[in-house]
Order: sequence, then C-alpha cells, then structure tokens
Amino acid sequence: MPKTAYLPHIAYDSVIFGFSEGDLKILIMEYHNTGLFALPGGFVQLQENLNDAVLRGLNERTGLTDIYLEQFYTFGDFSRFDPEVMRTLLEANGILPGDGYQWMLDRFISVAYYALINYEEVTPRPDALSDSCEWYPVNELPELILDHRNIVEKAIQTLRDNLDRKLVGGNLLPKKFTMNELQNVYEAILGTKLRRTTFQRKMLAAEVLTRHEKHFSGKAHMAPYLYSFK
Amino acid sequence: MPKTAYLPHIAYDSVIFGFSEGDLKILIMEYHNTGLFALPGGFVQLQENLNDAVLRGLNERTGLTDIYLEQFYTFGDFSRFDPEVMRTLLEANGILPGDGYQWMLDRFISVAYYALINYEEVTPRPDALSDSCEWYPVNELPELILDHRNIVEKAIQTLRDNLDRKLVGGNLLPKKFTMNELQNVYEAILGTKLRRTTFQRKMLAAEVLTRHEKHFSGKAHMAPYLYSFK
Repeated sequence: MPKTAYLPHIAYDSVIFGFSEGDLKILIMEYHNTGLFALPGGFVQLQENLNDAVLRGLNERTGLTDIYLEQFYTFGDFSRFDPEVMRTLLEANGILPGDGYQWMLDRFISVAYYALINYEEVTPRPDALSDSCEWYPVNELPELILDHRNIVEKAIQTLRDNLDRKLVGGNLLPKKFTMNELQNVYEAILGTKLRRTTFQRKMLAAEVLTRHEKHFSGKAHMAPYLYSFK
Repeated sequence: MPKTAYLPHIAYDSVIFGFSEGDLKILIMEYHNTGLFALPGGFVQLQENLNDAVLRGLNERTGLTDIYLEQFYTFGDFSRFDPEVMRTLLEANGILPGDGYQWMLDRFISVAYYALINYEEVTPRPDALSDSCEWYPVNELPELILDHRNIVEKAIQTLRDNLDRKLVGGNLLPKKFTMNELQNVYEAILGTKLRRTTFQRKMLAAEVLTRHEKHFSGKAHMAPYLYSFK
C-alpha cells in the first residue's frame, strides 16, 4: 500500500456480526507469523468515499455486496497510536517501512462500522497480510491489537441499543425464519434468556413481521410458522 | 495553524444546540469578509485525543467546560473536498496557502458532534477567522459551506432519536424547570405540537423526574411545580 494511494492518518475497522449455533460471532483476522489478532479494516483511497472504502473491504472479506452496515463511532484517542504493532505486522511479511510504508506507522484515527450478515452466505477470506479470517463467538475472542477490544464492546452495545429501535436482528437470519430462531438471535445479542411467550407477544404487537404459510411436513401441527420482516 | 501542529485530513464540526424563545437554535460562525457561514469546528493536535480537541473548541466558543457532548457521525464523502472554500476563507484574512497553510486545502473527513447547552449560560465567541458566532433557529439557517447543512440535519435526526431513549432534552434547560418548559423543548426538537396531558403522563410514567416544592408566590394554586431529571 504505497503512500500515494491512501489518505494518511485515517483507517476504518469493521465488526462483522454473524449468528450460528446459538452464538453471536464476529470475524477476526490473524496476521502472518505474529500471533496478532485484529478486526478486519483498511484505508481510504485518495478519491474514494469513506463508506465506499468500507464496503470494498467488506466485499473483499466476505464476498457480499448487499450488506447491512452502520457506522457507529470514530476512535481518536492518542493512546491508540502504537507504531510497534504495525511495524511487527509489516516486518513479519518481509516489508520494511523504508519501502514506502512509513505512513502506516503514523497515528491513525479509526472510523468503526458494524455489519450484520447471514452467516450461511459467507466464506471469510483473509487479506494479503493475514493467515486467516475466522468466526469467533463474541465471548471467546482472542486478545486483539490496539483498542480493538473496545471497538467490539462498543459495537455490541450499539447493536443492543438498536435491536428494538431499528429491528436489526433480522439481518442475521435468512429471509424467512421461525419465531424461535428470532428469539435465539435476540438472546445471543442481549446475552440473556427471554421468556418465550413474552418475546412472541412483543414481536407480534410491534406489527413488523409478516407470517407465511406453514411448510407442509405431514405433521402440520408441529411445523412452526415462518416469518419475515416487512 | 502551522502544519506541524495538527493532524492533516481530519477535522471536527460541532452542532451546538440551545433553546430560547420557543425555538431550537444552533451556533453558526460567519467568516470575515466572505459572507460564508459554517458550523464551529477545528482540528486535532498531533498528540491530542479527538474528543479533547472538540471539548477545547467548544470551550473556546462558549466558555463552558461541563457540556453534554455526543459524537454522532463521521462525514467522509469525497464530494466534501472543496479547496476553494478554504482558500477563500484564508485569503479574506490575508493568509496565503504558501504561509504554511497548504495542508488546510487538502481533503478532510469531519467527525461531527452535537452539544446541548443551557442557552442562558453562554456568550458565544467568534474565533480568529470569523466576525461572529451567533444563534440561529434551526429552521432559519443561512446557507452553509460544504456539507454543513447535511451535518445539521443528521444532528437533528439523532437528537430526535435520542430524545426518549437518552432523555437528552433536559440538557437544554436550567437544572429545575416546569413541565411546560420541558414540553416546549420536546416540541421544538420534534417540530410538532404535543398534547399536554399525554406528554405529562408519559414523562411522569417514565419515572425519570424529581418533583420539587412549589415556589410560594401568594397564588399557590397557580404556581407550577418545578422538576429536575434524577
């Protein structure tokens, strides 16, 4: 990434949420030969919109183009300036700062986004500097570089705040889902069990769901209804 | 502002809300000899936290140190890059870009904050480049530079979204206020009239207010109760 291609001092990081096996998970990168773990992120090209840069990065990591994406906070403390971390990442890839990468050792502010994707649709892909890009349950994360742990925690808090207000939970599921599946998503995000009857009554009262035909299975009374968000 | 003192490419802008005479108002700067109007903003020193830079700027404009301040969005479209606006501002002050101000003509992303202050406590102060720093009702704003109009609109939308969720309205009032004054603030923010009985019932049901003694006035039955947020 030569200096001329990107805006200096400005980075973005993405907290990419998925839901599987009852867990809320996020994508974490492991950098080559370093044992260092980080959120997927990147830089903004000189003539690129910030939001487009983030979509470009998400597409590179997930293959998806149609993504629920929300900017939630810009992290700008001076204490997040730690050139040794970036120097370690570069050197582990045989890159010396003198090779035109000096700008990557400067202070950065990071604009943080969260994305909600349907876990089933994604095959995560590492970038040029990393060995892997994998799902981790949010309560079993490895140690992350810089302030990335704080970024994750603020993303989860924002997701909780937006759960009812913006009905974001549905973005973690296939288009049609059962009430039970939706409840599982809510429970994973909130980190707590909900009462089934209370949850169902609340979701139906909000009048945001469309109920579809039962899938015929021979035991019709057992098959749950499928729903989708209006 | 010599190049060595500030991070290039990164600015902040503040939407500073106050409430007076029934109107929601914001502070707007008018630059010397240009007829150009803008939000108060500034830059981040090389070793300064982003949030501290914003508090520093707010203190310079308002004299206040204890301010309700919330970051709400970072504006990063390439289309906001317009070096002619900054060149005009500098030249109107007799400053040539060659004087070490060339960095101010570069592309900037802007981290936007909104602040809520008690109008009574503030005497706005212009900065070195501006003639005035004055209150304007949000629906009687002059034309603003760059994307500042968009920034204001997103700030108002965020304020509306947070009105019940974060009970931010009280920050626009003195510590103690009448129910009627609080309703006026809500109406100004929402841009719509509310039913008095419905509003009062809702605020009391939320159990967020403390009711104080009536101020004795000789016509006790006429004096409204004073409230404060818990």
